[in-house]
Amino acid sequence: MPPSSAGSTSVSVFGAAGFAGALAARLLYRHPSFELRALTARSDVGVRLDELYPFHRVPIVLEELDLDRHAEIDAAVVAYPHGASAPLVAQLRARDVRVVDLSADFRLRDPAVYEEWYREHQAPELLDQAVYGLPELYREQIRDAAIVANPGCYPTAAVLALAPLARAGLIEDLVIDAKSGVSGAGRAATAKTHFVTVDENLSPYGVPRHRHTPEIEQELAALGSDLRITFTPHMIPLDQGELVSCYATLCNEGGPRDARALYLEAYADEPFVELTEGLPGVRDVRETNICRVSVHRDDRTGRVIAFGALDNLWKGAASQAIQNLNLMFGRPETEGI
Amino acid sequence: MPPSSAGSTSVSVFGAAGFAGALAARLLYRHPSFELRALTARSDVGVRLDELYPFHRVPIVLEELDLDRHAEIDAAVVAYPHGASAPLVAQLRARDVRVVDLSADFRLRDPAVYEEWYREHQAPELLDQAVYGLPELYREQIRDAAIVANPGCYPTAAVLALAPLARAGLIEDLVIDAKSGVSGAGRAATAKTHFVTVDENLSPYGVPRHRHTPEIEQELAALGSDLRITFTPHMIPLDQGELVSCYATLCNEGGPRDARALYLEAYADEPFVELTEGLPGVRDVRETNICRVSVHRDDRTGRVIAFGALDNLWKGAASQAIQNLNLMFGRPETEGI
Amino acid sequence: MPPSSAGSTSVSVFGAAGFAGALAARLLYRHPSFELRALTARSDVGVRLDELYPFHRVPIVLEELDLDRHAEIDAAVVAYPHGASAPLVAQLRARDVRVVDLSADFRLRDPAVYEEWYREHQAPELLDQAVYGLPELYREQIRDAAIVANPGCYPTAAVLALAPLARAGLIEDLVIDAKSGVSGAGRAATAKTHFVTVDENLSPYGVPRHRHTPEIEQELAALGSDLRITFTPHMIPLDQGELVSCYATLCNEGGPRDARALYLEAYADEPFVELTEGLPGVRDVRETNICRVSVHRDDRTGRVIAFGALDNLWKGAASQAIQNLNLMFGRPETEGI
Amino acid sequence: MPPSSAGSTSVSVFGAAGFAGALAARLLYRHPSFELRALTARSDVGVRLDELYPFHRVPIVLEELDLDRHAEIDAAVVAYPHGASAPLVAQLRARDVRVVDLSADFRLRDPAVYEEWYREHQAPELLDQAVYGLPELYREQIRDAAIVANPGCYPTAAVLALAPLARAGLIEDLVIDAKSGVSGAGRAATAKTHFVTVDENLSPYGVPRHRHTPEIEQELAALGSDLRITFTPHMIPLDQGELVSCYATLCNEGGPRDARALYLEAYADEPFVELTEGLPGVRDVRETNICRVSVHRDDRTGRVIAFGALDNLWKGAASQAIQNLNLMFGRPETEGI
Repeated sequence: MPPSSAGSTSVSVFGAAGFAGALAARLLYRHPSFELRALTARSDVGVRLDELYPFHRVPIVLEELDLDRHAEIDAAVVAYPHGASAPLVAQLRARDVRVVDLSADFRLRDPAVYEEWYREHQAPELLDQAVYGLPELYREQIRDAAIVANPGCYPTAAVLALAPLARAGLIEDLVIDAKSGVSGAGRAATAKTHFVTVDENLSPYGVPRHRHTPEIEQELAALGSDLRITFTPHMIPLDQGELVSCYATLCNEGGPRDARALYLEAYADEPFVELTEGLPGVRDVRETNICRVSVHRDDRTGRVIAFGALDNLWKGAASQAIQNLNLMFGRPETEGI
Repeated sequence: MPPSSAGSTSVSVFGAAGFAGALAARLLYRHPSFELRALTARSDVGVRLDELYPFHRVPIVLEELDLDRHAEIDAAVVAYPHGASAPLVAQLRARDVRVVDLSADFRLRDPAVYEEWYREHQAPELLDQAVYGLPELYREQIRDAAIVANPGCYPTAAVLALAPLARAGLIEDLVIDAKSGVSGAGRAATAKTHFVTVDENLSPYGVPRHRHTPEIEQELAALGSDLRITFTPHMIPLDQGELVSCYATLCNEGGPRDARALYLEAYADEPFVELTEGLPGVRDVRETNICRVSVHRDDRTGRVIAFGALDNLWKGAASQAIQNLNLMFGRPETEGI
Repeated sequence: MPPSSAGSTSVSVFGAAGFAGALAARLLYRHPSFELRALTARSDVGVRLDELYPFHRVPIVLEELDLDRHAEIDAAVVAYPHGASAPLVAQLRARDVRVVDLSADFRLRDPAVYEEWYREHQAPELLDQAVYGLPELYREQIRDAAIVANPGCYPTAAVLALAPLARAGLIEDLVIDAKSGVSGAGRAATAKTHFVTVDENLSPYGVPRHRHTPEIEQELAALGSDLRITFTPHMIPLDQGELVSCYATLCNEGGPRDARALYLEAYADEPFVELTEGLPGVRDVRETNICRVSVHRDDRTGRVIAFGALDNLWKGAASQAIQNLNLMFGRPETEGI
Repeated sequence: MPPSSAGSTSVSVFGAAGFAGALAARLLYRHPSFELRALTARSDVGVRLDELYPFHRVPIVLEELDLDRHAEIDAAVVAYPHGASAPLVAQLRARDVRVVDLSADFRLRDPAVYEEWYREHQAPELLDQAVYGLPELYREQIRDAAIVANPGCYPTAAVLALAPLARAGLIEDLVIDAKSGVSGAGRAATAKTHFVTVDENLSPYGVPRHRHTPEIEQELAALGSDLRITFTPHMIPLDQGELVSCYATLCNEGGPRDARALYLEAYADEPFVELTEGLPGVRDVRETNICRVSVHRDDRTGRVIAFGALDNLWKGAASQAIQNLNLMFGRPETEGI
């Protein structure tokens, strides 16, 4: 069923050997409005993607990057590591290609913050062209963006779980405890991703300074809640799936008893945010572009507890990239995902 | 290798068909100083324990409770559900049997709190005889106790992870996010414990009022930190293992920068508390009586993050019961576990 | 996303609370050519399917069976247990409804064999109307069938893995060792499906007489290889996925050295059989209607080893039912799956 | 808990950074009759073993091999890869150290067979000194052996599951389908041991020539059954545990109907073979030195099906090494395991 519609928007995936890039390739390969042109990779060149990932069923050979051949496209999905991404994005922009970048390189608006948490920025002059690619917050800006900085998986879940509270200016203090499956650690085979390390195990990591912290703070601040948060992720023995548990102390204990009303209003028309009265599980959203959210009040402490569940490779990475491409090229937002 | 030393202390397990009772039976069956007399159960009567749990290798038949036959013992481990336990403990106390009770029935010192979170107390007159069975806090009182209320799994991990801070009066506000394997949900086969429900899943439960909340609050208050806490557990796809992630806002931001020193001092001589500079994982403590603890300061927020990892069936239940029995009967605290 | 095309074929699912019935409901709910009418169940009546199975996202309430209301349809998917299915199928046939039956009730052509392995047959008079619903073997007969007996999961994998050899009359002796995830045991919460029983475990079951044995024998015989086989399934700690490992001693050691050529020819045009040179894994086919097959010769023994991997709930049950419905109602065979 | 009894037998572990070597170190560290001297490794030199494997709780630093310092011992456990082991064993033997070798280097008595399946043998002159270290078969020879070739995990399970039949000369043809957890693939982090590869997956490997094949054939022949077998292992998503399912066509269909009687007799006094009437699961033997065996007759085909379950790191490797050391140094066979 490989579609190849003439006249459609041409897209290539740069960095298609990794988990997120490969999934983006699969979604594009079957997308009715995009034509998948090439897949490049920095490892496994010459290998067909369906040998690496049989379940994606994409019979396209991974190629070494050759911009002269690969950049004659309308759009690019870049799935390079942080730091390595910005120079490639710059080259693609020089050829007028619109880019969805899965790395962190264009997520943080302030290059000083980027440098504090990552490294020296490789293309700060492009930050002005970049829009933070969370459609539920920046839908209109994404439509016209030259660069869409696809959000981190944890920030996607956390910001969606907290946006209604943050926009109402209700959060005074915030702890986020996050849990993720192992695919979030990427394809590299290391002691940390060895089955025997992870299986029947459960442990925190990145304490106390995980790099998604400033990204979450930036977006909450943009919504009106300027906070210093504590964010702690944990590795869980499952492959795809992520849950954030957000503990918000409210500014004013006399505030609205019914946080849920804020959420109902905020998400009434969102195709990919699912508000549940129950408690979300990551199985509910596996292999979907959906973030499932719930909000609860702890009457004993006055705290509000909000949960957000998503598939870290889908809404947390590749399918959200397709959602962004749909917006950028005037397609229905839900098409192909 | 079933030991059966004459002259030793006789113990029976009441409620030995469940996960915790069966493990207590296994540990007692091989304990050098206790003689395991009888195993009673409310289901599976007539079945040998090694048919239900081959890996425990205890070739003893489960019997229906008959106090006239079963109460001629020095000590009892009672592994009944909350509410059902108190009446049996009362009957055993009437025959002068010393009891380690795995239920919640004697954990909360104030029967009004018990009634708020559980039900009407079935034997409030015995509360005076009960000691909270966390040896690291109540070692001396346990030695002479008639009833030892074996702590809940989450309170064991949380109180050990927080005791040095609580004793120093440093905690102003506290969020505890806990994660547990499925054995914590018990042996009952339900939709919630079905493999297909739990596998590749991850979800919160008991929001916002899990019953271990007042137990943790009671013990922190006893240490000097009277707090209302937010406590949220999550179900994780593994069998045995539990991690608590504790987020403490300190009373006085000018307090000791080195929380770790408090922990080193508190736990220097504890045989079953392991302080690690790294981040604990539940695999580190599987099938041991050890609680592995670490403490970290988040300099950006001033918050202290403390982790506690244990095996919910061992230190969180059955092996802690044996640790208590060792204390009650003058045995070395580490014997047989 | 809920399609509801006027003029399309109307289908109801009877027994939609179980794993296979619920998945059939999901596939029909989104199928472009079928209109999903009603979901009946024998438990959970009044509950919406998306409460039981959020990930299926089918917002339809489960109803108690009422043939007068529920049988005004073109087709039925019946997902009742063995024995309970035949009477319902008889009632549906009396109203001229065409049926895909997921139970074993119409799979075995000889009622005496059914009675030996299951129980007394409840509707032997209908056996003449039934076609064994493995499209790769009975495509043409399925198009016109009144009753399609959807194959068992193991027989689907085993027969597809062996058909080219069986049709060539090459198999003299056969051992099939099968492995399945836990969803194959169904939705009932029992000690056998409890997470703690299955996790980190691995064990055979149904030894030496699993009920899928005569079904496999029947279909191999229909292909020309009349054998008595040894078939042994094992329970594996994963949710969906099944692998059969087939060890065939050949009739004539001088036979074709290249079994693979037979397979290439047999499956060249099959949309849902994937022949791989490598070794198939169940992850390759998760949540697809594909059976992935490989065949290897053990030169030391002359034996041929064939593997078949599928998703027991999809190609092993619900999506194969949709494949059959597509054939029965003149739709493209791959539509909606 | 670290015992260090003067006058006891001194042992070092060579290659203690791997899974099996590390477990051997743990068992020796706590063994009442052996004094653990040194741990050498080819990676992670300078690291304490309890940093690599916190759960083993062995606070000994891994050292680079220095025979002058490390070979002044009574016994060595060598846990080197195949091929690398023989030269080290030769050096240890030159210093009169008795060796338990966990590699395959001394398992195959015929160096030509070793060379066919592995590589050129590095120390064929020592093969005469080696005894195959399956105590249930070679107990007396092991007591005096200079080199004990610790069996492979699959051969241990398979030979124990089949020995009574093989000794009676009953097997005419044999298929062994084996399943193992991921720890059997060793500590190396590769695409094959990445959590995301293995989780929710299940696949065969080593088809059709896994190296344990000639080892099983050798031992069955030694028992009187000279066969060419088909042996196929599969990778299962669990960490420790292994099951072999053995399908034996009998020489003489008129043979003993009660294979079980042969097993009862063979294993009546074996401390580490557990004969069960039910079906064994790997969970039953996790972290034990026990092989759990059952035997069943398939009356329809006359075939006998035998199962053997063990923990591949324990009875399949490290604890069996300790069992062998116990025999070699006159200790009770069950001591310390």
